[in-house]
Amino acid sequence: MDKKNLMVQGFKASAVAAGLKKDNALDMALILSEKEAVAAGVFTTNKVKAAPVLLTRDHVGGGKATAIVANAGNANACTGEPGLNDARHTAELVSKELGISPEEVLVASTGVIGQPLNMNLISEAIPKLANTLSAEGITSAAQAIMTTDSFAKTSYFEGRAGGKAYGILGIAKGAGMIMPNMATMLCFIMSDIFIEAGDLRKALLLSVGESFNRITVDGDTSTNDMVLVLANGMAENGPLSEKNYQEFTGGLRQVMGDLSRMIVKDGEGATKVVDIRIKGAHSTSDAEKAARTVANSSLVKTAFYGQDPNWGRIIAALGRAGIRMKEERMTIWIDDIQIVDNGLGIGVEAEKKASGKMTGKEFTVTIDLQQGSFEDRVVTCDLTHDYVSINADYRT
Amino acid sequence: MDKKNLMVQGFKASAVAAGLKKDNALDMALILSEKEAVAAGVFTTNKVKAAPVLLTRDHVGGGKATAIVANAGNANACTGEPGLNDARHTAELVSKELGISPEEVLVASTGVIGQPLNMNLISEAIPKLANTLSAEGITSAAQAIMTTDSFAKTSYFEGRAGGKAYGILGIAKGAGMIMPNMATMLCFIMSDIFIEAGDLRKALLLSVGESFNRITVDGDTSTNDMVLVLANGMAENGPLSEKNYQEFTGGLRQVMGDLSRMIVKDGEGATKVVDIRIKGAHSTSDAEKAARTVANSSLVKTAFYGQDPNWGRIIAALGRAGIRMKEERMTIWIDDIQIVDNGLGIGVEAEKKASGKMTGKEFTVTIDLQQGSFEDRVVTCDLTHDYVSINADYRT
Repeated sequence: MDKKNLMVQGFKASAVAAGLKKDNALDMALILSEKEAVAAGVFTTNKVKAAPVLLTRDHVGGGKATAIVANAGNANACTGEPGLNDARHTAELVSKELGISPEEVLVASTGVIGQPLNMNLISEAIPKLANTLSAEGITSAAQAIMTTDSFAKTSYFEGRAGGKAYGILGIAKGAGMIMPNMATMLCFIMSDIFIEAGDLRKALLLSVGESFNRITVDGDTSTNDMVLVLANGMAENGPLSEKNYQEFTGGLRQVMGDLSRMIVKDGEGATKVVDIRIKGAHSTSDAEKAARTVANSSLVKTAFYGQDPNWGRIIAALGRAGIRMKEERMTIWIDDIQIVDNGLGIGVEAEKKASGKMTGKEFTVTIDLQQGSFEDRVVTCDLTHDYVSINADYRT
Repeated sequence: MDKKNLMVQGFKASAVAAGLKKDNALDMALILSEKEAVAAGVFTTNKVKAAPVLLTRDHVGGGKATAIVANAGNANACTGEPGLNDARHTAELVSKELGISPEEVLVASTGVIGQPLNMNLISEAIPKLANTLSAEGITSAAQAIMTTDSFAKTSYFEGRAGGKAYGILGIAKGAGMIMPNMATMLCFIMSDIFIEAGDLRKALLLSVGESFNRITVDGDTSTNDMVLVLANGMAENGPLSEKNYQEFTGGLRQVMGDLSRMIVKDGEGATKVVDIRIKGAHSTSDAEKAARTVANSSLVKTAFYGQDPNWGRIIAALGRAGIRMKEERMTIWIDDIQIVDNGLGIGVEAEKKASGKMTGKEFTVTIDLQQGSFEDRVVTCDLTHDYVSINADYRT
């Protein structure tokens, strides 16, 4: 975090080690806006929704919020009515400490599924969180929400509206069980801009569609994913012009794009971030299906790990994607090296060059289906030995 | 192979090292029926179909065949018109050696995608294959079609019809890129039963639906999958009674069930075979979707590897499966140990016992959705370090 973060006026945060993680690391975070903020959220599309998702979706429904309390180490998912009561009780404890209503408190959890929250630890931690809030606390908050993450994820954008400077500051966590159409991806974004609730919601949906909903680590959609945005208006910019709104949306997209890319980079065991770009699809739906199928193929992802420009696996994945395609029209590049022309391999030399590109930490696979004019992209990572180690050993 | 195989009258086979595999192992096989046989086949549903799939689908369309020629080491997939010519040429070379028409020859290939077949090697190998045919050769043929397989796969069933004994002998290969709704799974089945072409096709479709179409290793569908059945009538059993037909279908299902289970057992890097059984689904489609989604989840499969009864991941996978389900109704067992009751974990002791069951090489996960009366099952394997090693290093 750099000093710019102080530009998001009126937000404070804190973090403590409540004892929910095994290693006594930071595992609870609190974020508070001095003034009640306009708020919007998007949540996991998984039919199994964790208790905090159900509660927070309800609380944010009115378009207002003042605080976010989050814990790592336990997802409070698949915990039934007792779990929902625990989430409610958490919001109540925070509301009492801060002197606000429980409905103004948004609750988020991430971690292991199916175990009851230790409410004793949470009850003890909340007063400490409330007593240590500071403008600088956001750095610790970003650390506290980590689970299998290997680094804390923050991003910042600075804009101007109505002659006033405002900031957009986001933190996120997530490393596995990632294929958000929204238990494991959390993103909290704070801004001091003044914006109407409807506009904030619109900007959020647009930005999520182009960022968090376009990444995948392992094709699994978690029970706990949520993206929350709070805007407290303390920049005093007054009503947004269309131009101001566009700039804000661009900023939000940039912050979310940054954070979502960091999540892939930190994908469990990942060594490479790969952009899968589809061109020439027959429809938007075909473009998205094609990108997702390639991005989630275990065979393609292990080939990335092996720096093997194995285009046969890419074409085979596209063949089962349920899209309109003709093998003999497909053309494929790794970065700027073409390896397939109209369904046939270019040759060994091109593949050697492509393999060279794949030694890097980031590269792009571009596939032109030559069926129409629609495009899409999904950001994915490679599938590695460490992914298996992390997920075979997670609970044990 | 045991001596019983000799009971499939009139079939001979051979295998040679043509030089298509790097290590000079057996890589081409020929199977011949003394008499023209009734034949049926099912093929990959991947839109990208390898040249031998296109040719063989055409040749078997008439319901007759006499020989199967197969090579490993090169899938002849994504090879365009030249690849199709190579497949045709292969059939012609075999037909000349055996004195039959090219249309009676079925061609199959498995191996690397996107590289031209070395027809010089194939031309040299075919006369050798023709000259070494024997009733015992099927054992070598089963070895010759292996790629990343670690063991040859054969299965045998013996039945009686019209007072005559007949046999069903199957060989198969396949280890990765396996989620057949049909480049990598091949199965050839020989029988000396007399059966009408229409009945053979019906029995094949039924048996494939319950065996090969119910296994998954990594969710990828290959460009080359095929299952071929030849029945040459040399058992002289005469027209099949309904009872005889049912027994034959049962035998075919048993042989295919055996072989498909062997494919999962030999799944790339797999250490465990896991039956995913869904009960109480609202529809057949829901039952199948539920079973496939759990069976293909990387997070569930790594948990199997870690012998972790991580039911949260199972429930989360079901939540994104697009089926009718209620978290609070789901009940889950590992073998006979219940670990979830109506959406909630049974407890630590049950999970310890379940983990004990998971140390074995085979176990069953039963999920009761309590939404209706439909059932399905898919056989899967665990996702291991070796899967990643095998697939990262395959071509290099």
